[in-house]
Amino acid sequence: MKIHNNEYYMNKAINLAKKAYGRTNPNPIVGAIIVKKNQIIGTGYHEKAGTPHAEIHALKEAGTDAKDSTVYVTLEPCNHYGKTPPCTDALIQAGIKKIVIASLDPNPLVAGKGALKLKEAGITIEIGMCKDEANKMNQLFFKYIKTNMPYISLKTAMTLDGKIATYTGDSKWISNELSRNYVHELRNIYDGILVGIGTVLKDNPSLNTRLDKNDIRNPVRIIIDENLDIPINSNIINTSKEQRTIIYTSKNTATKKINILESKGIEIEQTETDENNKLILEEVLNNLPKKGIYSVLIEGGGEINGSFIEKRLIDKVYWFIAPKIVGGKHAPSPVSGQGIELINQALYVERININKFENDLLITGYIRWW
Amino acid sequence: MKIHNNEYYMNKAINLAKKAYGRTNPNPIVGAIIVKKNQIIGTGYHEKAGTPHAEIHALKEAGTDAKDSTVYVTLEPCNHYGKTPPCTDALIQAGIKKIVIASLDPNPLVAGKGALKLKEAGITIEIGMCKDEANKMNQLFFKYIKTNMPYISLKTAMTLDGKIATYTGDSKWISNELSRNYVHELRNIYDGILVGIGTVLKDNPSLNTRLDKNDIRNPVRIIIDENLDIPINSNIINTSKEQRTIIYTSKNTATKKINILESKGIEIEQTETDENNKLILEEVLNNLPKKGIYSVLIEGGGEINGSFIEKRLIDKVYWFIAPKIVGGKHAPSPVSGQGIELINQALYVERININKFENDLLITGYIRWW
Repeated sequence: MKIHNNEYYMNKAINLAKKAYGRTNPNPIVGAIIVKKNQIIGTGYHEKAGTPHAEIHALKEAGTDAKDSTVYVTLEPCNHYGKTPPCTDALIQAGIKKIVIASLDPNPLVAGKGALKLKEAGITIEIGMCKDEANKMNQLFFKYIKTNMPYISLKTAMTLDGKIATYTGDSKWISNELSRNYVHELRNIYDGILVGIGTVLKDNPSLNTRLDKNDIRNPVRIIIDENLDIPINSNIINTSKEQRTIIYTSKNTATKKINILESKGIEIEQTETDENNKLILEEVLNNLPKKGIYSVLIEGGGEINGSFIEKRLIDKVYWFIAPKIVGGKHAPSPVSGQGIELINQALYVERININKFENDLLITGYIRWW
Repeated sequence: MKIHNNEYYMNKAINLAKKAYGRTNPNPIVGAIIVKKNQIIGTGYHEKAGTPHAEIHALKEAGTDAKDSTVYVTLEPCNHYGKTPPCTDALIQAGIKKIVIASLDPNPLVAGKGALKLKEAGITIEIGMCKDEANKMNQLFFKYIKTNMPYISLKTAMTLDGKIATYTGDSKWISNELSRNYVHELRNIYDGILVGIGTVLKDNPSLNTRLDKNDIRNPVRIIIDENLDIPINSNIINTSKEQRTIIYTSKNTATKKINILESKGIEIEQTETDENNKLILEEVLNNLPKKGIYSVLIEGGGEINGSFIEKRLIDKVYWFIAPKIVGGKHAPSPVSGQGIELINQALYVERININKFENDLLITGYIRWW
C-alpha cells in the first residue's frame, strides 16, 4: 500500500472542490477527503448553496468508519447555523481524530472560530496546507466576503502591436480557437459578463457559454447602456428568455422602452449618472451582489475597459496576445478613454502568469493597488 | 578524466565564436576547438575581418599535437583565397583525423565544397552538430550572403495595453532598466541603428552603446530624414565625430544644409522618394551593405515601424511588454501608418520566444513571409 502525505490528500480535496466552480454562489467552493489507515473512506464537495457542505457529504460516505480518521478540507468548517447545521458539530460527533484545513474562513470576523471549536473538542488541527491554491480557487468569492463588492476581471484580446481591431473595425478573429474556447471556460465560471452598449451595437454578441461538454451554464449578461439604445432585434434581446440579462441605464431613460424590455424578461436597473451622462460604475458594482452576482468578467471594448481602468475597479486581467501585426494609427487599442498623463502614473499588473494557446499568449495578472 | 561528447565541444566552439558578435563584418562569427584524447589542445575564434580564421588560431595553439586530433568548428572551413589562405589546406597539412562542422557555408554556391575537399584528403567529416544554434548566431550575416540585403530587426517597448507613450507623449520609461540594458547589448551587436527624424526631434537620442563592460562599440546611426530637418544642435550631430552617422534624405534636399552636415562628419545619402515625399526604404536598405552595414536594428516610433511593416522589410522583432496599463484613445501604439484592412491580412510573427527581465516580457520572433 502506497503511503501518501498530507499534500497529496489536500490536492485531491482541492480538485474535488473545483468541480463546482461557478455553481455555489454565494458560497465558496469546498472539497473534503476522509482518510483512515492510508485509505480514502469518504469524499465530498459543496455542489450548490443550500445543499450540504463538503464535509457532510464525505462523512456520510465514510459512515461509522469516520471514527478516528483524518479529514482534509479546503476551507475551515463552518460553526454556525445557515441553511444547513454547523459542520463542526457533525465532525465532533463523528469522532474525527485530526482535521487538516487549507484556508481559514475569509471573513475576518469569524475566521478561526470553527477551528477553535474543533480543537476544544480534542481534535488535532493543522491549518495552512496548500493555502495559496485554496485561496486562489476562491478568489472570486473571498473578495465579496471582505469588501461587499464583486470580483472584477477584464478580458481582452489584442495583436502583438496592441490592436483589438483593424482601422476598419474588423476583429474576427484576433485570437485563435483555443484562446476563444478558454474564454468560454471563463464564462462558465464567472457569474456575470459585462459589456458596454458599444460592443452590442458593433458585434451583436450572444455572450453565452459555448463549450463541448456537459454541465455548462450561461453567465448573467450585464449591459451598460445609458440611453437604452439596445436594439429590440439584437441577439441579446432575442435570447432574453433563455439567458438572464440585466441592463444598467440612466435614471432619465424613457419608461416606454423600459416597459418593452421588461416584458421580454430583461431586468432594468436605473442608476446615477455623472456629468457626462455616464453611469457611475461603482454604483453598478455595488448593486450586482444584490442581484446574486459576485464575480464579473468584462468583455467590453476600449471605452468600457478605459472607464473601469480609470476608476481602478479591476482585480484581475486576462490579456490574450496574438502574434500578429495589424498596424494603423487609427486601429483601436484595448484601453482607450483619456488615459494617464505620465508613464510613472501607470497601473501595474503584478503576479504575471503566461500561458500559451498554440501561438497565442495569455497573460494573466492582478492590478497592484499602489 | 571526464569524457565529453561532440555536443559538449561544439557548444564550447559556439561560445567562443560569440565573443566576436558584431566585430567580424562582413564575415560571420566562427569558433573552433581541437580535441585529442579527450583533452582540448587548441581553441580559437575569428576576431575581425582580414585576420586569421578560427581554425588557424586553434591549430597554432595545438602545434604539432594537432596530428590525429578532432576539430570542432562552427562553420564549414573555407576553401578559397580571400584575405587569408584557405583553412582547408591548413587542416589537411596538420594531419587532422576528424572534423565536426555545425553549419555549411551559407552561400549555396560554395556550400559543401570545403567539406568535400577535406573528405577527399581522407579526413572523417561530420556535418550538422548544433546546426540550429550555429545558424542562429550568424543570422545577421547569412541573410546578406543569400540576398544582398541587410538583416532588419525591429525593437519596440510598449505597455500591456499596447502604448509606446502616454497621450501627452511621455515615454520615460516604459520598460525597466534590465530591458533597456538588453537594448544596449543589441546595439553592441547590430551594425546600425535606424530611426526616423520624428524620434530625433521628439527624444533627441544619442543612440550609442552604454554598457558596463569592456569591448563595447557603437553602432552606426542611420537617420531617415527626407527634408534634412535634423537640428544642428542635436545630440546626434554633436557626437558626429565620435560615432559614425549616415542620414538618408531626398534628392531635393538643399545643398547648403548637406554641406554643413558633411563638414561635421555626417555622411549624407540622397535617395529616391515616393509620391508622398517618403524615402523608398528598399533603396535605403540596398545601399546599406555598400556602406559596410549588414544588420540594422530599427528603434523608431510608430511611423517608421509602420512603414517598414507595411513594406514587409522586417526579419525579426524584439518586442518588450511592460506590465503597465496607460490607457488613452490618443496614446500612440507601436505600429501606426495606415494599417491593414482585415485581420486575416495580418502579418504573422512566428518562432516566438519569451524572456523575462524582472517583470518585463521580451517577445522575440520572426516575420512569416506568407
